[in-house]
Amino acid sequence: MAAVEPGPLAPGAALRMDFAGAEATVAIGVSRLGHHSVWVGSVGDDAVGTMVLDRLRAERVDVSGCRIDPELPSGLMVRERRTADHIRATYYRRGLAGSRLSVAQVDTEQIAAAGVLHLTGITPALSACARDAVHAALDAAVEAGVPVSLDINYRSALWSRADAAAELAKLVSHCDIVFAGLDEAALLVPSASASAMAESLAALGPSQVVLKLGGDGALALHRGRVIRQQAIPVTMVDPVGAGDAFVAGYLAGVLDGTSVRHNLRLAATCGAFAVSVPGDWAGLPSRRELDLLNGTDIQR
Amino acid sequence: MAAVEPGPLAPGAALRMDFAGAEATVAIGVSRLGHHSVWVGSVGDDAVGTMVLDRLRAERVDVSGCRIDPELPSGLMVRERRTADHIRATYYRRGLAGSRLSVAQVDTEQIAAAGVLHLTGITPALSACARDAVHAALDAAVEAGVPVSLDINYRSALWSRADAAAELAKLVSHCDIVFAGLDEAALLVPSASASAMAESLAALGPSQVVLKLGGDGALALHRGRVIRQQAIPVTMVDPVGAGDAFVAGYLAGVLDGTSVRHNLRLAATCGAFAVSVPGDWAGLPSRRELDLLNGTDIQR
Amino acid sequence: MAAVEPGPLAPGAALRMDFAGAEATVAIGVSRLGHHSVWVGSVGDDAVGTMVLDRLRAERVDVSGCRIDPELPSGLMVRERRTADHIRATYYRRGLAGSRLSVAQVDTEQIAAAGVLHLTGITPALSACARDAVHAALDAAVEAGVPVSLDINYRSALWSRADAAAELAKLVSHCDIVFAGLDEAALLVPSASASAMAESLAALGPSQVVLKLGGDGALALHRGRVIRQQAIPVTMVDPVGAGDAFVAGYLAGVLDGTSVRHNLRLAATCGAFAVSVPGDWAGLPSRRELDLLNGTDIQR
Amino acid sequence: MAAVEPGPLAPGAALRMDFAGAEATVAIGVSRLGHHSVWVGSVGDDAVGTMVLDRLRAERVDVSGCRIDPELPSGLMVRERRTADHIRATYYRRGLAGSRLSVAQVDTEQIAAAGVLHLTGITPALSACARDAVHAALDAAVEAGVPVSLDINYRSALWSRADAAAELAKLVSHCDIVFAGLDEAALLVPSASASAMAESLAALGPSQVVLKLGGDGALALHRGRVIRQQAIPVTMVDPVGAGDAFVAGYLAGVLDGTSVRHNLRLAATCGAFAVSVPGDWAGLPSRRELDLLNGTDIQR
Amino acid sequence: MAAVEPGPLAPGAALRMDFAGAEATVAIGVSRLGHHSVWVGSVGDDAVGTMVLDRLRAERVDVSGCRIDPELPSGLMVRERRTADHIRATYYRRGLAGSRLSVAQVDTEQIAAAGVLHLTGITPALSACARDAVHAALDAAVEAGVPVSLDINYRSALWSRADAAAELAKLVSHCDIVFAGLDEAALLVPSASASAMAESLAALGPSQVVLKLGGDGALALHRGRVIRQQAIPVTMVDPVGAGDAFVAGYLAGVLDGTSVRHNLRLAATCGAFAVSVPGDWAGLPSRRELDLLNGTDIQR
Amino acid sequence: MAAVEPGPLAPGAALRMDFAGAEATVAIGVSRLGHHSVWVGSVGDDAVGTMVLDRLRAERVDVSGCRIDPELPSGLMVRERRTADHIRATYYRRGLAGSRLSVAQVDTEQIAAAGVLHLTGITPALSACARDAVHAALDAAVEAGVPVSLDINYRSALWSRADAAAELAKLVSHCDIVFAGLDEAALLVPSASASAMAESLAALGPSQVVLKLGGDGALALHRGRVIRQQAIPVTMVDPVGAGDAFVAGYLAGVLDGTSVRHNLRLAATCGAFAVSVPGDWAGLPSRRELDLLNGTDIQR
Repeated sequence: MAAVEPGPLAPGAALRMDFAGAEATVAIGVSRLGHHSVWVGSVGDDAVGTMVLDRLRAERVDVSGCRIDPELPSGLMVRERRTADHIRATYYRRGLAGSRLSVAQVDTEQIAAAGVLHLTGITPALSACARDAVHAALDAAVEAGVPVSLDINYRSALWSRADAAAELAKLVSHCDIVFAGLDEAALLVPSASASAMAESLAALGPSQVVLKLGGDGALALHRGRVIRQQAIPVTMVDPVGAGDAFVAGYLAGVLDGTSVRHNLRLAATCGAFAVSVPGDWAGLPSRRELDLLNGTDIQR
Repeated sequence: MAAVEPGPLAPGAALRMDFAGAEATVAIGVSRLGHHSVWVGSVGDDAVGTMVLDRLRAERVDVSGCRIDPELPSGLMVRERRTADHIRATYYRRGLAGSRLSVAQVDTEQIAAAGVLHLTGITPALSACARDAVHAALDAAVEAGVPVSLDINYRSALWSRADAAAELAKLVSHCDIVFAGLDEAALLVPSASASAMAESLAALGPSQVVLKLGGDGALALHRGRVIRQQAIPVTMVDPVGAGDAFVAGYLAGVLDGTSVRHNLRLAATCGAFAVSVPGDWAGLPSRRELDLLNGTDIQR
Repeated sequence: MAAVEPGPLAPGAALRMDFAGAEATVAIGVSRLGHHSVWVGSVGDDAVGTMVLDRLRAERVDVSGCRIDPELPSGLMVRERRTADHIRATYYRRGLAGSRLSVAQVDTEQIAAAGVLHLTGITPALSACARDAVHAALDAAVEAGVPVSLDINYRSALWSRADAAAELAKLVSHCDIVFAGLDEAALLVPSASASAMAESLAALGPSQVVLKLGGDGALALHRGRVIRQQAIPVTMVDPVGAGDAFVAGYLAGVLDGTSVRHNLRLAATCGAFAVSVPGDWAGLPSRRELDLLNGTDIQR
Repeated sequence: MAAVEPGPLAPGAALRMDFAGAEATVAIGVSRLGHHSVWVGSVGDDAVGTMVLDRLRAERVDVSGCRIDPELPSGLMVRERRTADHIRATYYRRGLAGSRLSVAQVDTEQIAAAGVLHLTGITPALSACARDAVHAALDAAVEAGVPVSLDINYRSALWSRADAAAELAKLVSHCDIVFAGLDEAALLVPSASASAMAESLAALGPSQVVLKLGGDGALALHRGRVIRQQAIPVTMVDPVGAGDAFVAGYLAGVLDGTSVRHNLRLAATCGAFAVSVPGDWAGLPSRRELDLLNGTDIQR
Repeated sequence: MAAVEPGPLAPGAALRMDFAGAEATVAIGVSRLGHHSVWVGSVGDDAVGTMVLDRLRAERVDVSGCRIDPELPSGLMVRERRTADHIRATYYRRGLAGSRLSVAQVDTEQIAAAGVLHLTGITPALSACARDAVHAALDAAVEAGVPVSLDINYRSALWSRADAAAELAKLVSHCDIVFAGLDEAALLVPSASASAMAESLAALGPSQVVLKLGGDGALALHRGRVIRQQAIPVTMVDPVGAGDAFVAGYLAGVLDGTSVRHNLRLAATCGAFAVSVPGDWAGLPSRRELDLLNGTDIQR
Repeated sequence: MAAVEPGPLAPGAALRMDFAGAEATVAIGVSRLGHHSVWVGSVGDDAVGTMVLDRLRAERVDVSGCRIDPELPSGLMVRERRTADHIRATYYRRGLAGSRLSVAQVDTEQIAAAGVLHLTGITPALSACARDAVHAALDAAVEAGVPVSLDINYRSALWSRADAAAELAKLVSHCDIVFAGLDEAALLVPSASASAMAESLAALGPSQVVLKLGGDGALALHRGRVIRQQAIPVTMVDPVGAGDAFVAGYLAGVLDGTSVRHNLRLAATCGAFAVSVPGDWAGLPSRRELDLLNGTDIQR
């Protein structure tokens, strides 16, 4: 639930209902680019939960493995736009439906048939059972030889940097692709230049390390080579979700089987679409819309 | 956070930020009618908590005894207007700041100096510490000879009818004024006609029993006499908060020292104001606005 | 400037800009029904004044005789919807452009060529120069044998009942058609039944007296006969402007040359259109739209 | 695209994008009640077409048989709310994508596997190829022994009463269930009492005739017996779509295998949900929400 | 009908009703700058058509020569703001009222009395009869010695570049002033530098060629001299309509009889006003508002 | 009452109710930064007046010394956003409640106990009695040795530059801190460089002169030293109120007892908060929010 206008929340203020979540944004982004995607989560048996599943279904994301918790309400976030440039979020997640994600929801066969398993650093921070589910999924993918992608997605409201570092280090060592911002990378490796940090992360195991640098674009390290991508200039109307949109584009490229350079370009394009439309995922492009930001102009 | 338009919640739906709460509505209503009122509660150290305290202060409600919890977010409610006639609420209260109300916040001197102590059946359902606080406040009032008012305000999402009945029976026996709807009264006494139920409730201790009958108005039992009040006809735009507005009017009458008949009339007038304006308390009248619904017309 | 939602005005409340005025509503209503109409007024040289003249022009109302005051701002009204049923207006008129209407704007030739001269009881209350303008217009019409219509339109914020009665009595004695609500009629004649009051008013001079009775419809007295008209049932969304819309319909009938019974029917139809659309005049019908409320159904 | 507020359309007026259509409303209603439903139509390769298909997919309606026309834009409707009680629609359908529905889209196997084939009187009015498609579907259902339902849905903007009567008579003779309003029934049989008209319609072939009587409820004729159903009282906020929601409920009952009386009750309940929420289909109930209007109260 | 917020169109999305059109924007712009202007077009006998004519009348544009088509609906455009920077329009024009503009509407006397006849490349693309009307108007102006202005206004949705080039070449050869963007100029002359293209266009006949260069301003070629004008820096909120506003300013300058340099300045000022206000024409300036963007500051 | 969207005011345009005023913005800003503040003014006994006092109370500003005028309406301002960059205000102040501020409201003891008395150049321009009140307050502060601050705040709609200069010169000579823009400083001293003008102003008496330079930041002259402060870069959504927010920050620094350099920094931070939120004062920071714009990032 996000405030429509900048300013401290006040009685009568207009809010906009939307659903958001790093994993859902990735799933929608990959689906809009034409790949089959599956989202596994847990929602309450309430209006919010119904809305989340309906909308994912509209986006052709497979939600058949989701849990509908009979007792707990769906998780929430309240976003205040304290100023035009600063968003302040209050999370309602602890002890709510989303934290009940469990090993029982991990479908080994489905994972074995996937092109990529994507995990985030949010899920293991929600609860012990959610953490177990992450590990079970990871194991299933490793077992089946399915590449695993991880976005660090550190959330300070959910756990300390120390707790996060300990848990994420375990996950990273089994992953093929790791996404992180510089601050997030610093959870696991010493602060240094972006390329040095990418190298340190790669030393932990992943074959591809992708660092998201905000306005400075992104950088990937693959087979010892550093590839850089500039941010694509657009009018920014809502920065939230840019990183997840970026991941969606990159993973769609991975599923396409294209080069790292091409994947970065696709990732940056998805990020640009996301920030030039309100909401986390609403602006994500279909494949044929990609040209809008790739030089082919449209009539205004 | 209440949906603006009827219909299932959908992505992009407009919501309206507001704060609500049975006790706050009563405090604001009494204050607008010219009496000093104090609200004791617990909020989070966040945008929602700040908004609640600011707004109560604007209404001249004394909030100096409120707790600002350093860790837990403020409680929330999401109101879906499933149809034009049906509101469906999801509560976020368990484990949030509001449930941390505690005995430490009970100011014995302040209670001793009060005209009335008003309690609701919501607070003891929030947590053990909140329940203790209710009893401490009740004891302080009884000790000081301050009349105690209780609105049953049964919330099925918070506790079972059996648990509620056990706890509320204890409170009722020490109260002077009890407010209830017919369904709520049936927690404590056998279902029967409204006047018979009022008599059964009075037998538990209170000197005044006031039953809220919705569109059928209200009924008070005082010194063995039943006094009835019709609902005041207005265009209803938001039924939520009507009962609390009614209580505010009644208690303002008690503080005025007027008759039960007069108090019922004031209560019904406040209820009518509340339902003809969106929001729980926004429509509550100042004393001089009372005439708007008492026959003295205004230019339209 | 009218509040969009019921409730006391609060910071951030949504207002809707519109222009309103008894005379403008009549002019627009007559114009939409296909007659030429002229509005003579005075506005400020500001955004509000420009908006008023543009919109009247859009409605084909001739505004070539209006004054644009080089110094004073346009008059304003702030409408709070205190409850769903009660509107509370604050007027900004005294010492503003509208009060500078003057004799210099009275175009004797234009009046002589008119089918009806319509005056209201608002204009003479604005200022001495506006009052003089009203008398000059009245004299010109009487001189030229043009029928004069007067709507009492008593505004308590502008003058006392005594002052209004003194002035309006002078005007009524020279008018052919007088419109009034029962409260307004009581300024000039003793309170009694509607038909008795109509007779008393007719005794002051006018050949047609039309009493607006709100939900009870209307009543006309003409040549000693009383003709009654029921209100036409519609969903009421904004009662303001109903009386002026009624007058517009009646006067359009007068210009059509139809019977009093027919004029009353047209008047009631215009009133019904006006109240079932927000704004004072926005809902007024064109001639071919009249059938919407006259039994010929449309596809919904 | 429907005007948000009553009144003639004006520059700057707020509209609300939605998609509507008799057949889509029926498909969504049946799906929400737990049955598999398929919608076969034709949309443009544009924003409107994408929105329609996404939303139907969200509702679990199978749209895999829809055409996306590469050349023509999607059909449109502009709804002006001329007054609070009167909606005025302008249709953009002729020569647009919707009229390109064709025989090639009729999937004989899918129809043979269906519980009911539902047709409307709108489709054959769109174009010759759409009409052919209707007949091909009808033939396939008859061939496979699948019951056929037809809602007359007469649209005067699309064809004359004479043309409609000629075409619809052909369809009705092959149908099992026919839905009509009284005006629509009068296209095919002489005007008379509702039950007499139902009998005349039944004489044309259908084993069930259901007449929609608006505020007077509905009436079904089955095996020579007339069964009546009252309208369920709710606050009406948007009457459009009520008839289609009614059909959805009735057909869900047919698929449930319940009695005509029960089907009528379900139909009326769906109609009541639809009109108490803005939009044609947004308010349609899931099965467990049915109790909201069936006496089991919810907390407000 | 334009989406209010960026993002793919979704059910429930807010749209804003407005009317737009290259010729109407020019007519309004010229009128606001104090010249008499006439708009000749064709609209449907519906809410949209009524709105268009009312609003033009409000702007003092003479619409007495417009056709109101008794059968076809008014043309429409749906504008999706796919991102903050990209607008995607779907046109509803073919087979609608606007395409019925005909020779019968060409008023030779009115044209002979005009200061300028302004044509666009849109009209001849609508239908054969509209094309005939354009030629008839052009002939009348040439006959009477009235200067003819043409804005290429190429619309790819209406015709191919080849068809447009063939038709526009005929028109250009008879015009005095031609407006084009660089892409539009390339329909008729080889791509080259802006000044070279202007010279090639001038070689086709026009005495003044004005190229609109977007953010790079504009360039006019007159009597062999190239005059350049920078764009005036403002906050851009809606780029649509800028080119037409520019033309309005230029033509107002032509009617003023001022120099080409002055006309370009006035044109750029009108373009700047247009883009800093939502809507195509709403922001166009009156003559005395011009100073707002010409250095004379106003209090903010 | 401020237009929500850019463009000339039109019927139906959305406005936003808010209250504004240089002195109120300063009082709220100082209060949010943790100091006690008192606002002395005069409002009407109407919805606007009630809203102003309620909201100031919510902000913990002491309004106990305000007058509620029994006869005159509250002052108003209508703000048209003519373009995205230009706001055009029409003031309704003359002859309204605000101009009745009087000597009787000057509480000598309260002033003697204050940390700073802040005056503006608006109040003495409202009426003779308001001017007398300003002088009485000034005298009381001087008498008690309380520092006096003055913001020139020249309003051309209220008085001429000559009248303002004469009056303000008197005030400046008794003040300790003077705030002015360059244009405002030029009322009292010859135009020159900012630092030279500051010196000229200091020569008139004040020990601190602070010049507000808009996008160029600010400059203070104190004990012969010039200290400069850059503007803090933020996304500007509403420039109005920036200067008053700046003053609030500076005076809070004065009350904190910090250095001029620190006060300027606090002032610039407050200005930055104010412009990145709609409304004059809504965005003003609490003390702990200051870090948002001071380099410590928050999660977006």
